[in-house]
Amino acid sequence: MDISHLLTPHSQQMESSLVRELLHYSQQSDILSLAGGLPDEAVMPAYPALNLLNDSRQYGASEGEGSLRKSIVSILAERGLVSSADNILVTNGSQQGLDLISRLILDSDSTILTEQPTYLAACQVFKLQGAHVQDVVSDEQGMCITALREAIDKYQPKAVYLIPNFQNPAGHCYSLERRKQIAALLDEKDILLIEDDPYRDLCYENVDLTPITTLIKSAPWLYMGSFSKVLWPGLRVGYTVSCGAFTPHLTKIKQAADLHTNRLGQNMIEYFLESGQYPEHVKKLRVVYKEKCDRMTGALNKYLNGVVEFTPPTGGMFFWVKLPEGVSSMLVLDEALKEKILVLPGVPFFPCKNPLEDSYLRLSFARVSPAEIDRAISILSSVIRRLMP
Amino acid sequence: MDISHLLTPHSQQMESSLVRELLHYSQQSDILSLAGGLPDEAVMPAYPALNLLNDSRQYGASEGEGSLRKSIVSILAERGLVSSADNILVTNGSQQGLDLISRLILDSDSTILTEQPTYLAACQVFKLQGAHVQDVVSDEQGMCITALREAIDKYQPKAVYLIPNFQNPAGHCYSLERRKQIAALLDEKDILLIEDDPYRDLCYENVDLTPITTLIKSAPWLYMGSFSKVLWPGLRVGYTVSCGAFTPHLTKIKQAADLHTNRLGQNMIEYFLESGQYPEHVKKLRVVYKEKCDRMTGALNKYLNGVVEFTPPTGGMFFWVKLPEGVSSMLVLDEALKEKILVLPGVPFFPCKNPLEDSYLRLSFARVSPAEIDRAISILSSVIRRLMP
Repeated sequence: MDISHLLTPHSQQMESSLVRELLHYSQQSDILSLAGGLPDEAVMPAYPALNLLNDSRQYGASEGEGSLRKSIVSILAERGLVSSADNILVTNGSQQGLDLISRLILDSDSTILTEQPTYLAACQVFKLQGAHVQDVVSDEQGMCITALREAIDKYQPKAVYLIPNFQNPAGHCYSLERRKQIAALLDEKDILLIEDDPYRDLCYENVDLTPITTLIKSAPWLYMGSFSKVLWPGLRVGYTVSCGAFTPHLTKIKQAADLHTNRLGQNMIEYFLESGQYPEHVKKLRVVYKEKCDRMTGALNKYLNGVVEFTPPTGGMFFWVKLPEGVSSMLVLDEALKEKILVLPGVPFFPCKNPLEDSYLRLSFARVSPAEIDRAISILSSVIRRLMP
Repeated sequence: MDISHLLTPHSQQMESSLVRELLHYSQQSDILSLAGGLPDEAVMPAYPALNLLNDSRQYGASEGEGSLRKSIVSILAERGLVSSADNILVTNGSQQGLDLISRLILDSDSTILTEQPTYLAACQVFKLQGAHVQDVVSDEQGMCITALREAIDKYQPKAVYLIPNFQNPAGHCYSLERRKQIAALLDEKDILLIEDDPYRDLCYENVDLTPITTLIKSAPWLYMGSFSKVLWPGLRVGYTVSCGAFTPHLTKIKQAADLHTNRLGQNMIEYFLESGQYPEHVKKLRVVYKEKCDRMTGALNKYLNGVVEFTPPTGGMFFWVKLPEGVSSMLVLDEALKEKILVLPGVPFFPCKNPLEDSYLRLSFARVSPAEIDRAISILSSVIRRLMP
């Protein structure tokens, strides 16, 4: 049945995500996947006892559970971000926060600026609203300040979307100096900051993690956090906090979208936070992931030294690996898959056409064992070398 | 901080839901609420044992859990609706199904036809897409066929949105004859049917419940179901099934919106369905709710005979009560609240201006006890009589 006449223009243009296309491979037991952004189940705590949670069966508040919102205020305070429970909106993962924000501020007359490269599912929601997504040159200290100023002047954007800590996919962590420069520029130009911070707890080195939001003096801001990378992604619980004026608008859209976030998941997380186990759990996560991160650095140096370029990340889940000239990331995907190794080409992370878009791989170390990392990179090395011109 | 320049035109126009405004009253312990559409916690089963459910911690599929989708296929087959797991999308309650469908097909160039009155949160999502929502005269057998034909010819709508079973708010259940006429007309005009069916299991009389979807021969269709009225609304699990061509598009929007529905809730429901307790549970629900429904009929006849007009519903949760001429439903709300009784005025259920929009109350009997029903209607009676001109 042809239904194309029923779809809106933006729905028709929506591209299928490469990640989604690849997902079914990662579910095959003989495939070793470096492709997803999935945390390691082995370090997820068991769910709290259920008899406590039977009071989450009824409909709940659109804003989220009051007790969880108070705990989030405390978590944010530790990051230097002063907020109140009234300005916290609990969402189905921070992905829904992005979606609700997009629906609130973006339409086909809007431009939003992003890093280059950036999180592909953010581009999806921005484009679904018909917005123009413009990337801005970024280096290892973060989005370049001159390029950002030029882009603001040229495009008069509605907002700037940033992932300052252990960026997805590039792995960068912004320097404090760059954070300050960006905050000052957004204040000067009165441009909305959308700060996405899901990876900050997965920190393996002593780096600055100051939310840019806390450095802003007068510009509007929205900040998103998630429990998916440190606790249970299957529960779909994240949150958005804002400078206040956004709260009633976001809550109305949340209510229209799905009434509220599942209460059982919210209460599971709240019980875990309240139990006092959270800080110890995060410490443990850092030890486990740092070992895997170091192992991937070692494997890339051992098997692909001088062939690929990369900077070991100081946190997060991803290596952003530049392939040798003339080697296509899409071809690497195909050839590696034949040997049961799944990698993610960098292509979908570039919102705008870019001559280098086919030159990167995003490799995740989070869900594979140290031994598997070694084996995967060794196979990947032979694939890449075979494809070199 | 003024952020109005940042909001899209449709976001700016979005009205706050009266239901949401009233929600904080219903949380006060001394208020007796007939306002919400909340099921009775007393008849919700306890959650299944949690040790079985720890495998739902990781990220999951955007389409939903495979096992649950198969169970939904069986549930739909009992309704005469032949489908396959591939065409089932699990959503955060059926509300999210409505939202995803709206985002797929509606924009500011679209018209969607609804019953008069209709579910207010459906209008919210339709209007958030900028669509024109046009209601069509409906009687106790359902949407009037002549009016529907005229509206289709006049507005060339993208779709028709119907709640044929125990409609919210009017409580009507469509006759089989009307179902057949509507299906034939939609086939003739090739208009998309969006059929919303959350209340069908709450059936207290022997009435026809044939999904209009199953009577359609060639027109496109989408059908939504929910577990919120019969199991645990706090889990936010519903589903959308479609004629197939919609599936890949809806799944892409679902993925962009929030990646997937919380897996713990999906698995809770799947374990309950698999346990074989579902048919017995539904039987029990019908007994409990039928008693309350009868009690409300009795109380309305006892205290408001000849003053208000209503037809006792044959299922669902709601009485749609017409007030005496000259009595404003908004005033009844205010005055009844002073006596700690919360009712829902019919105003927000009319998508288009209507001379009768302030003349109805929606009264829910689901969450109050039989004795409370009696007390509430007795107080309501004195309020209404006091306001009569």
